[in-house]
Amino acid sequence: MASKKLRVLPLGGLGEIGKNMTVIEYDGRIVVVDTGLMFPTAEMHGIDLVLPDFSYLRGRADDIEAIVLTHGHEDHVGALPYVLREIGFPPVIYGGLLTIGMVRSKLDEHKLVDGANLQELPPGEKARHGPFEIELVHLAHSIPDMRGVLITTEVGSVLMTGDYKFDQTPVDGRPADISRLAEIGREGLLLLCGDSTNADRPGVAPSESSVGPALLEQFARCEGRIIVTSFASNIHRVQQVIDAAAQLDRKVALVGRSMRKNFNIASNLGLAEAPPGMFIQPREISDFPDEKVVIISTGSQGEPLSALRRMANNDHRDVQLHSGDTVVFSATPVPGNERAVNETIDRIYEIGASVITAADAPIHASGHGWQEELKLMLNLTRPRYVLPVHGDHKRLRLHAELAEAVGIDPERIFQGRNGLPLEIDASGAGFGEDIHAGVIYVDGVNIGEPDDAALRDRREISADGIFIVVATISSDDGTVVADPEVIFRGVAFLEDADALVEELADLVEDTLEDAAESGNRASHLIEEDLHEAIGKFVWQRLRRRPMILPVVVEV
Amino acid sequence: MASKKLRVLPLGGLGEIGKNMTVIEYDGRIVVVDTGLMFPTAEMHGIDLVLPDFSYLRGRADDIEAIVLTHGHEDHVGALPYVLREIGFPPVIYGGLLTIGMVRSKLDEHKLVDGANLQELPPGEKARHGPFEIELVHLAHSIPDMRGVLITTEVGSVLMTGDYKFDQTPVDGRPADISRLAEIGREGLLLLCGDSTNADRPGVAPSESSVGPALLEQFARCEGRIIVTSFASNIHRVQQVIDAAAQLDRKVALVGRSMRKNFNIASNLGLAEAPPGMFIQPREISDFPDEKVVIISTGSQGEPLSALRRMANNDHRDVQLHSGDTVVFSATPVPGNERAVNETIDRIYEIGASVITAADAPIHASGHGWQEELKLMLNLTRPRYVLPVHGDHKRLRLHAELAEAVGIDPERIFQGRNGLPLEIDASGAGFGEDIHAGVIYVDGVNIGEPDDAALRDRREISADGIFIVVATISSDDGTVVADPEVIFRGVAFLEDADALVEELADLVEDTLEDAAESGNRASHLIEEDLHEAIGKFVWQRLRRRPMILPVVVEV
Repeated sequence: MASKKLRVLPLGGLGEIGKNMTVIEYDGRIVVVDTGLMFPTAEMHGIDLVLPDFSYLRGRADDIEAIVLTHGHEDHVGALPYVLREIGFPPVIYGGLLTIGMVRSKLDEHKLVDGANLQELPPGEKARHGPFEIELVHLAHSIPDMRGVLITTEVGSVLMTGDYKFDQTPVDGRPADISRLAEIGREGLLLLCGDSTNADRPGVAPSESSVGPALLEQFARCEGRIIVTSFASNIHRVQQVIDAAAQLDRKVALVGRSMRKNFNIASNLGLAEAPPGMFIQPREISDFPDEKVVIISTGSQGEPLSALRRMANNDHRDVQLHSGDTVVFSATPVPGNERAVNETIDRIYEIGASVITAADAPIHASGHGWQEELKLMLNLTRPRYVLPVHGDHKRLRLHAELAEAVGIDPERIFQGRNGLPLEIDASGAGFGEDIHAGVIYVDGVNIGEPDDAALRDRREISADGIFIVVATISSDDGTVVADPEVIFRGVAFLEDADALVEELADLVEDTLEDAAESGNRASHLIEEDLHEAIGKFVWQRLRRRPMILPVVVEV
Repeated sequence: MASKKLRVLPLGGLGEIGKNMTVIEYDGRIVVVDTGLMFPTAEMHGIDLVLPDFSYLRGRADDIEAIVLTHGHEDHVGALPYVLREIGFPPVIYGGLLTIGMVRSKLDEHKLVDGANLQELPPGEKARHGPFEIELVHLAHSIPDMRGVLITTEVGSVLMTGDYKFDQTPVDGRPADISRLAEIGREGLLLLCGDSTNADRPGVAPSESSVGPALLEQFARCEGRIIVTSFASNIHRVQQVIDAAAQLDRKVALVGRSMRKNFNIASNLGLAEAPPGMFIQPREISDFPDEKVVIISTGSQGEPLSALRRMANNDHRDVQLHSGDTVVFSATPVPGNERAVNETIDRIYEIGASVITAADAPIHASGHGWQEELKLMLNLTRPRYVLPVHGDHKRLRLHAELAEAVGIDPERIFQGRNGLPLEIDASGAGFGEDIHAGVIYVDGVNIGEPDDAALRDRREISADGIFIVVATISSDDGTVVADPEVIFRGVAFLEDADALVEELADLVEDTLEDAAESGNRASHLIEEDLHEAIGKFVWQRLRRRPMILPVVVEV
């Protein structure tokens, strides 16, 4: 039995906000909980997406019993197409009703839906797969059908909370299943992996249903058009905006692809509804008086290509913002997006429209529980061990301190890292060998690692540009047989580029002559000489270190 | 007289936080108030600094009577070396004592100090230059010797406030000269250009001297080393840290070049002091017990090369952070720096050290007045016209609303833009012709504009990389005389690069053969053909659009 340890291996979401993914392993068999992604920063130079490093799973497709998804947010499901393509299809993919609906649509876009066995697992139902019993526990979050994942093995049970809050008055009337959580606690929970996102906020998060009245109050004061931006997946928020618009006899237009897509999915599943005749098409907006319209738009995070950002840049086909419009940010910036959001807000001010944010009125409620809720989860489930997840290092630490505050022995609380497996058996728990999980980048259709030489090259060229020098020499005697070509790109603010190029061409000829005289004929040695001579010259002249790319052609 | 209008032309600081610069013009003569810079974002690809577009001053060096600097912060003086180099030296550069001291050091580094007539202009003294009378008014800010600038012409007076707060208990005991401001109001102020930075914060900013006791309280609880980070130019903050350290019998090490430099300048001018034997050198830190040391470090904004960032990255020569250390952020992130600051904080948590920020304790006070102070300035100076400056569009609008709230006629309050001159004479005020001031980028030793082709190239290459194809053909008949060379850089995650290069080489040969057969001999036409063929091939294969650079060499 000593070798039969329960391994809980976080591949993402620790020391960061995003790309949540955890491997639960027992007796050589695996359940994967969540397969999330992160969005790239400008420093990543053209990278499209950031994924957890799931190379641990390579060659182990046959060991995977199931992938279980807590909810439909990108930071929990966004990497799924890449995992399926690179690792293979598991026997089953479980989730709540909306989660499965959203994932089906996503896999369809990636042409992967045929191989995927997507199954709704209703809360409370127990699915047996290999050494695991899998059960979903209903919790509340900023998207419907959020489920904690309880995985039971003969060593004990692990509860992955996913993202949750203890909202006592959720919009759909289905609060977190506190009763089942308490039962799990009574039955004896081995390990709790809990959401740390709001571990720094004292108190209890406001209820989602408190947002509706606040929105209505703000809307009632607006005399012109109202543009509301929020996360497209926050179906209950969108529903509350629609309800407020209906009360004020305004029509609603959904603007932005993901806004329309998510509402359609939720609406087809009976999770959202609008009175008949409520919706108008984006192109019809200008047919209605300003005071009769509410636009619900993507772009709450200032995303560069989002509908709202395009409106703020005076670059949206259907919506031209103007004085009298009010833009309502029913969302707060995800950490890292502050600048993009503030830029968007400021452009709206520049146009002359008004802006209302969550700092002005209680028009947003976080989907992640605050400190008192994290403590409640700990007290309900009474875990033997605690591994805080879903948070940067600060929030993981604060969550650990909350666990200590409710009386859990500090020695049973673990400060984890991506790639560091927590191994548990009857004799205790401790970290196993670090597998050094990094990240995977998606660039176009391909994936790779951040230390790829190409990305170093992008950084180098994007900082200082590139000089390309083509020297054509005789293969007989190394003499120059054509004028050297000097080309540069991305070298900024050259004052007299022609003169510089001419000097460089002379330098190239001199270098080639020296090489020929010294009997140096090997192309790669000549290229080294050219690299050194040109690099030195450019540094002296421009105080920059562009990439130098010498090409010697022998004819 | 109709032609003699007073022109107030903001070249920077409107619609943005940073690079403040204003041209005051009357009767063909000019006073420049402030010459500030901004720091670049990652999207600017290797740009080092961002300056106001001062091309309006080109060829007008002889018209400039003076440059007047409100205070020594980079966003008010940082562009001075570039203005002097590009436009020329004015007869005089005025400022407060510390401002002049800091600018002298800066110009010295740029080898420009010899040509500059740097003069302290004591508050209350009036300097006559051409049609202008220049007077500095003492105000309080987060750097000593902050001065508002009053410029009087026969049309009337303009007060540029610079950055200010009405701190009733400043550390140096010199509050803003309210008496003179009231007098200016009684004499009749034509135009107030006021700082809008905190126009969104209700109430009154806390006093700088409230920070000292809060720091002492936090320090007293620390059992290990204390690392305090703040702006190096905030001499009074540094002084208060030193005083708190002295009370707790801890030594102080100043870490980071600008921290040492600014303290030395201030200390030489008698604006800061430390008890004898108080300071230790950074390399001596490890010689003292942890509980006997306070380190004052640069890096409060998460700047990539700053001392604190290097400590957080385990990459500082003298300071290795460890569990037991407490890092105190006695500063808040400047808008746009949130992510860099949060990354730094999180790395410190990862190391196991503790962090205290202004969210945890009142250990920072803004240097910019809040709403009640902005109103007080308006009520004291009772300007006929108001032009809010120093703020993004949101804050300019909110400042305008404050002016309206204290009873100023909305028609006399102007919402400006960089490059839009406000023109005033006895008959009224209004915006003149927009000069479309943009920005100037500094790249290495050169300056230029953001639409420079090189920067577009950097963006293109940094997103998708670059393919370089060298084709060598006979100048006689266009036939291929050497194997084509295909080189790429920054093209990420190629799965079988050799095969791709081989296919590309074949494609190049085919294209060259087609060109030769069709009698197409001109290099630039062949290059166009190659560009099209390769671009198409790469898109089909990689779904990326790297830069394609064909080079045809004729021998």
